[in-house]
Amino acid sequence: MSALGSALGPIEYAEAKNPAVRAVFDDIKRTRKVDDVNNFWKYLAHDPVTLKRTWESVKEVMAPGALDALTKEMIYLAVSVTNGCGYCIASHSAAARKAGMTEDMFGEVMAVVGMANETNRLANGYRVPIDAAFER
Amino acid sequence: MSALGSALGPIEYAEAKNPAVRAVFDDIKRTRKVDDVNNFWKYLAHDPVTLKRTWESVKEVMAPGALDALTKEMIYLAVSVTNGCGYCIASHSAAARKAGMTEDMFGEVMAVVGMANETNRLANGYRVPIDAAFER
Amino acid sequence: MSALGSALGPIEYAEAKNPAVRAVFDDIKRTRKVDDVNNFWKYLAHDPVTLKRTWESVKEVMAPGALDALTKEMIYLAVSVTNGCGYCIASHSAAARKAGMTEDMFGEVMAVVGMANETNRLANGYRVPIDAAFER
Amino acid sequence: MSALGSALGPIEYAEAKNPAVRAVFDDIKRTRKVDDVNNFWKYLAHDPVTLKRTWESVKEVMAPGALDALTKEMIYLAVSVTNGCGYCIASHSAAARKAGMTEDMFGEVMAVVGMANETNRLANGYRVPIDAAFER
Amino acid sequence: MSALGSALGPIEYAEAKNPAVRAVFDDIKRTRKVDDVNNFWKYLAHDPVTLKRTWESVKEVMAPGALDALTKEMIYLAVSVTNGCGYCIASHSAAARKAGMTEDMFGEVMAVVGMANETNRLANGYRVPIDAAFER
Amino acid sequence: MSALGSALGPIEYAEAKNPAVRAVFDDIKRTRKVDDVNNFWKYLAHDPVTLKRTWESVKEVMAPGALDALTKEMIYLAVSVTNGCGYCIASHSAAARKAGMTEDMFGEVMAVVGMANETNRLANGYRVPIDAAFER
Repeated sequence: MSALGSALGPIEYAEAKNPAVRAVFDDIKRTRKVDDVNNFWKYLAHDPVTLKRTWESVKEVMAPGALDALTKEMIYLAVSVTNGCGYCIASHSAAARKAGMTEDMFGEVMAVVGMANETNRLANGYRVPIDAAFER
Repeated sequence: MSALGSALGPIEYAEAKNPAVRAVFDDIKRTRKVDDVNNFWKYLAHDPVTLKRTWESVKEVMAPGALDALTKEMIYLAVSVTNGCGYCIASHSAAARKAGMTEDMFGEVMAVVGMANETNRLANGYRVPIDAAFER
Repeated sequence: MSALGSALGPIEYAEAKNPAVRAVFDDIKRTRKVDDVNNFWKYLAHDPVTLKRTWESVKEVMAPGALDALTKEMIYLAVSVTNGCGYCIASHSAAARKAGMTEDMFGEVMAVVGMANETNRLANGYRVPIDAAFER
Repeated sequence: MSALGSALGPIEYAEAKNPAVRAVFDDIKRTRKVDDVNNFWKYLAHDPVTLKRTWESVKEVMAPGALDALTKEMIYLAVSVTNGCGYCIASHSAAARKAGMTEDMFGEVMAVVGMANETNRLANGYRVPIDAAFER
Repeated sequence: MSALGSALGPIEYAEAKNPAVRAVFDDIKRTRKVDDVNNFWKYLAHDPVTLKRTWESVKEVMAPGALDALTKEMIYLAVSVTNGCGYCIASHSAAARKAGMTEDMFGEVMAVVGMANETNRLANGYRVPIDAAFER
Repeated sequence: MSALGSALGPIEYAEAKNPAVRAVFDDIKRTRKVDDVNNFWKYLAHDPVTLKRTWESVKEVMAPGALDALTKEMIYLAVSVTNGCGYCIASHSAAARKAGMTEDMFGEVMAVVGMANETNRLANGYRVPIDAAFER
């Protein structure tokens, strides 16, 4: 009830009444080999269906495949920086570093993200038509 | 004069009166081993100072360093897709493919970009506070 | 004068010298049946013309019509979450809850916003052409 | 192979070699009671894993729950308009109309989206602090 | 009726049944000294209330005040380029040129817009805290 | 090492080991006639190459030309407000005020930015085609 009148708070493992929430938390901890889940999951736990779908999607998308885990984390970070999502920048900087991003790599990701955001607008503003070579 | 009343058109090498424009075009062709420059540069040529600064910045930023050329191109593409810049998506998809991006890699870049854009908004909407572990 | 050297502060009702500001504050309090206006209006009061135009526009747009007040508030929230406007997410979450948004509804709004932000980028990245059926 | 050198094209049902793609197409047609799937799915079919995950997520998220299908479609449209995704605006305008959005409702969705985008920036620019009442 | 099944088309002056629409069109033509209104207004005419409010707001906001008309048009263009709104970039480039923007000015607007979009992301990515001097 | 596990901190002049960083800091202080550089530069100093390129680009772009310094700062602010970059809004509000932006001018910049963000979405949502007069 108070949840309707103010912002939601985190749901800790011990207070999660829904077994589906605990199952997701357990799977995150097992998969990532961590003792506790990040705040993101504790807030998403207010909606167990979205929690489960989001975790399973993230787990599938971020698993190494044609791209390794580090490359995927740097792309995730690049998107988060472009969108200006403070939480996501903090958590995915940490995740990318854990996956092996060095300080030099971080600097280069930022440089590319900055440059892309700049040239995206130059292309918009000059109304550059797509080259025939890039068309289907 | 007509340029003030309507949209600007491309400036081709042969019609570039400013030697600085030709010098940039020559450097792009030499660096990228291509016969002609993309529309992006032909439109930017309306402002030779911006053309030169942008090319030199792009050349510096996109050169292999701590990250290889392919990884940089995929990050550039991820930003362009997030921003919805049609020209940039077309040109940097082509550039990434030229640098070695396979169809499977392209699919994984898109999947990560989509997922990051989704979770960025979930973090915004649930007003998730940054975990102490991610703070300085 | 100090306003030029630093950020602006809120203008409280009692200190508003411009009668147009007080008139808008009075109308907001009367219309919304509240004792005080939100910070948004106290800051906008630095520009009485924009304050008045914005309030009258918001009042007109948010009044129930073909859509009820709750639906409008949830759409407002969805936009604010997409843009990552912290103030707006906080204030329109509260407004939507006041208009009847339950915690389940909030979760579904967030789920749709997240999904739309994801598929928007997949459509961008795959450069999907608009189906003939959707064209004029 | 040519797919690597140029943009991807749509994958039609008849040419889909992967049975997982056909299974998703069949489920979309059955669920939505349509004869063919939209271009979005035909392009996503280049990545069967993302196709399947995206469809199952969309199906789960857009099913009526605490919010009805029409409200969800209008929220989807509001996000797409905010992001400026041309394909998504076209397809979700059509979907919302199919779900019962009248022309008056469409006008009100647009009015709310426009107003929210305006006030989001006013809140940003005036650096409005969140009211204590909206804080947790 | 067909309007519900497909995209809306423009409403020309001669076919506008609502006198409020004609009154707005007449005021735009008189104020801007033009023979016909742009497509933007012909489409917005589907919602006469939004048409009228938007026109009156634009007229008030864009009138010369502490800033001249040209400066306002260049700011409008800068926002449109940042958002990637194709229609708005085209129409406000034309409006800015009509208000006196030279080709050199256009180039400098684009250069500033590009640079701002780049440094906005560098500030995001490096999580730069606001200097005490900029705080209230 | 600790830099990899947590967020980066500022690099002060006295602790900058790289002479290239000190040279940039000196040039910023000399050019802007200030005693110390803003946090932005202290964080960017983690990547001396990006620090140098960004400063030289900003110096070139923001120098008075066809547009004066104040107009350029207001455009920079308009972009930062549109993107919702908190640091950039704070620093460029201050910079614009230092360049001569009065409180009335600030109000008008905000009003134009708000209006442009609103009409950008109306143009998107109504799918307004570009007038022939604006096409090349």
